[in-house]
Amino acid sequence: MPESDLGDIGADEFREHGHAAVEWIARYLEGIEARPVLSRATPGQVRAGIPDAPPEEAESLTDILADIDRVVMDGITHWNHPGFMAYFAISGSGPGILGEMLTAAFNANGMLWKTSPAVTELEEATLDWLRQMLGLDAGLRGILMDTASMATFSAMVAARERATGGETRRRGMDGHRLRAYTSEEAHSSVIKAAISCGIGEEGIRRIRADGAFCMDADALSAAIEEDIAAGWTPLFVVATVGTTSTTSVDPVGEIVAACRPHGIWTHVDAAYAGMAAIADEYRWALEGCESVDSLVVNPHKWLFTPIDCSAFYVRDPAALQEAFSLVPEYLRTEDRDVTDYMDWGLQLGRRFRALKLWMVIRRFGRAGLAARIREHIRLAHVFAARVESDDRFELMAPAPFSTICFRYRPHGMSDEPALRDLNAAILDAVNATGTVYLSHTALRGAYVLRLAVGNLRTTKRHIEQAWVAVTESLGHLPIH
Amino acid sequence: MPESDLGDIGADEFREHGHAAVEWIARYLEGIEARPVLSRATPGQVRAGIPDAPPEEAESLTDILADIDRVVMDGITHWNHPGFMAYFAISGSGPGILGEMLTAAFNANGMLWKTSPAVTELEEATLDWLRQMLGLDAGLRGILMDTASMATFSAMVAARERATGGETRRRGMDGHRLRAYTSEEAHSSVIKAAISCGIGEEGIRRIRADGAFCMDADALSAAIEEDIAAGWTPLFVVATVGTTSTTSVDPVGEIVAACRPHGIWTHVDAAYAGMAAIADEYRWALEGCESVDSLVVNPHKWLFTPIDCSAFYVRDPAALQEAFSLVPEYLRTEDRDVTDYMDWGLQLGRRFRALKLWMVIRRFGRAGLAARIREHIRLAHVFAARVESDDRFELMAPAPFSTICFRYRPHGMSDEPALRDLNAAILDAVNATGTVYLSHTALRGAYVLRLAVGNLRTTKRHIEQAWVAVTESLGHLPIH
Repeated sequence: MPESDLGDIGADEFREHGHAAVEWIARYLEGIEARPVLSRATPGQVRAGIPDAPPEEAESLTDILADIDRVVMDGITHWNHPGFMAYFAISGSGPGILGEMLTAAFNANGMLWKTSPAVTELEEATLDWLRQMLGLDAGLRGILMDTASMATFSAMVAARERATGGETRRRGMDGHRLRAYTSEEAHSSVIKAAISCGIGEEGIRRIRADGAFCMDADALSAAIEEDIAAGWTPLFVVATVGTTSTTSVDPVGEIVAACRPHGIWTHVDAAYAGMAAIADEYRWALEGCESVDSLVVNPHKWLFTPIDCSAFYVRDPAALQEAFSLVPEYLRTEDRDVTDYMDWGLQLGRRFRALKLWMVIRRFGRAGLAARIREHIRLAHVFAARVESDDRFELMAPAPFSTICFRYRPHGMSDEPALRDLNAAILDAVNATGTVYLSHTALRGAYVLRLAVGNLRTTKRHIEQAWVAVTESLGHLPIH
Repeated sequence: MPESDLGDIGADEFREHGHAAVEWIARYLEGIEARPVLSRATPGQVRAGIPDAPPEEAESLTDILADIDRVVMDGITHWNHPGFMAYFAISGSGPGILGEMLTAAFNANGMLWKTSPAVTELEEATLDWLRQMLGLDAGLRGILMDTASMATFSAMVAARERATGGETRRRGMDGHRLRAYTSEEAHSSVIKAAISCGIGEEGIRRIRADGAFCMDADALSAAIEEDIAAGWTPLFVVATVGTTSTTSVDPVGEIVAACRPHGIWTHVDAAYAGMAAIADEYRWALEGCESVDSLVVNPHKWLFTPIDCSAFYVRDPAALQEAFSLVPEYLRTEDRDVTDYMDWGLQLGRRFRALKLWMVIRRFGRAGLAARIREHIRLAHVFAARVESDDRFELMAPAPFSTICFRYRPHGMSDEPALRDLNAAILDAVNATGTVYLSHTALRGAYVLRLAVGNLRTTKRHIEQAWVAVTESLGHLPIH
């Protein structure tokens, strides 16, 4: 092949298909409601449309982009659909998509400040903006990670090193009985972090939650005392602001007070609900966080930024560096007074994630973001009011934010297995409509339906549609 | 605000700025050579261009995109520049950029098969294509991770659980003296993984490398025997195909043979050089990998895919699941015979990373990718020939792929500190030209310059430019 054929595609080809892709995306987003929100693909269907062997020769981008429609599209569950109300609903907004385009074009790796100063400095500046928007104190410094799971894991490892004076880093965990704490309602990522870092499942003590699904701080204090007496070293607690099942808020101030005498690292998982604090009247969500050691919020959850983008704040970056920093000769630089984010965690390579977040914050403004968050909470409570007004249904948990836990419970029925079957059947019927996608959870043994509002396209009409889908599903239930 | 003002930006606004962004990217890539490859920004310069406080009100995308030029651009080290020959040079090719656009638009989270079947199935299919292209055996199954660091870490945790029968997952690392092995030339991520998972730095035994910087398999065998006698449990080895400093290749077959009698998990870090195996005459690079337990290659390094995209292959996915799987009620599904990739690692949320890789492989074809890799190796050896032909310079390591280690060494000079100063001065002078960016490493105490070819825009002209920059820098050296 001539040298000229061994480069990238040419500028003309990029322009042609780039413009086509923009048009394709605009039409996809405009027409999203015509598609079923939950993919109806059967297992193996997408793969069956893909040749078993890779192409030997080059194909045209025209053919490849056509296959997005032909092969991929039916296998997409549309997180962009206004009827997506499962898990936590999200939006990769227009400004965020443009940010990802530019990030891909720069293709910069921000492992060191030097390898693209703008990657590091825009990250520092944008995360300080977000800190201010959340009302967090100026003692916290931020880093973007891919997921809250990695943020919680990084905090746990840093806490482990702080508790053992760096001995576990050097010599490993043999000889250490370490304990971390979180509520029974906390996210599975806390347990995964404990497994991963060598503390183990038994090293996590799940603290009882109260009637509103919030951690009981007195039970935490008692557990810590008991563990110390039994020879454990308590080192880490994860409080949750917005638990995954019910969005309950742990009493962070009380938890910090319980932990401080013992030097326990306090980490807050505010991945979803922390963003509510951008609206003044929800500033209370992060109350008590003034003196935590670390905190994570996810712009890719409720701040309209494409995944992945998780903002991890830490009071003492040196603690992360003492856990993770390891600079081989080839990465040594002479630069001083700069941040080399590779020293703050396990991963070396780092995407330019700040660009999309910076663009989202600027395009919507703090006030615009607050208004959208406020609207999502309002919409969720429109749905909650429908549930409350129908005596066949019941709300299953307080709903401080935009997530509603409810179930069908006709005639005061109390047979839990039967209620589980009925509500699972409702979930299947609702999700089969293609207009709405809900998910479920378990609360104290009860099977519970969840509706979460967080997509920018969701309006009151979609909330009403969801309620119609739920009530119409009753006509198709097995006899009870 | 009216409800209509609380959504995403409108389709017209997205189109207008999306087309502008495509045009901007095309011009940026066309004009890349006019920019200095290494950013000349001083510490704090980018941040000084960004307001301290977030905007209260919405700004226009026109203003925001203009700030990319005004604030961000001077702080970018241009990984797209054909003169980028530092670390490992990479390319986020046009097809890859288009893939990222679509990924951002779908904004799907592939944590479960159900949450977007196409995310999972395209990943399975594309990674099987890549497996075939690399000549790896059909017993390996793939998952895309963000970085090779996470792949190596995941493999180490899985090995830990296999070695302890799941006891460390349940009860933590207390009571376990675990040993992992890698060569003294291995990547820092192996040590970071050991720190993170509780094995500790002392739990990693660095095995001597031979004169060609390859792991000495006999020394490995001896170390394993010695450790067993001393009460350690050997569980994991990382062999490297393409070490970071010199791209040396460990003798994987011999390492596997040394490990097999002891049930040690063999993991191969082929992040950079594994891709060479796509070209038939470099198929040897992955020889010996037929029966390894796991292997990682990075499409974001030498397969023209935007970061992040790391392909992690494992023989026994159940081992990953036994280490990491933890399915809370809200993620339980009825789907059978599907892959839920969230069970394979620490992170829950997962971007649709396969799309860009699938597009890159299709647009270039296997033959086109092989031709490009072959050309990069040829170009690197053009540079090596210049070094060899000039008796003031010397090659410092064998160069099996596209990376050349060399240094200036006039008059057979043997004063290592003086040689370090001279070569560091050459590096600074070369990088200050703006036409080429090299990096350095240390080899057996010597300070060594590195030139790596991996960017699709690099041609013979740029290699010659690099050599000119190096030789012209000699005129500015301090007197020696």
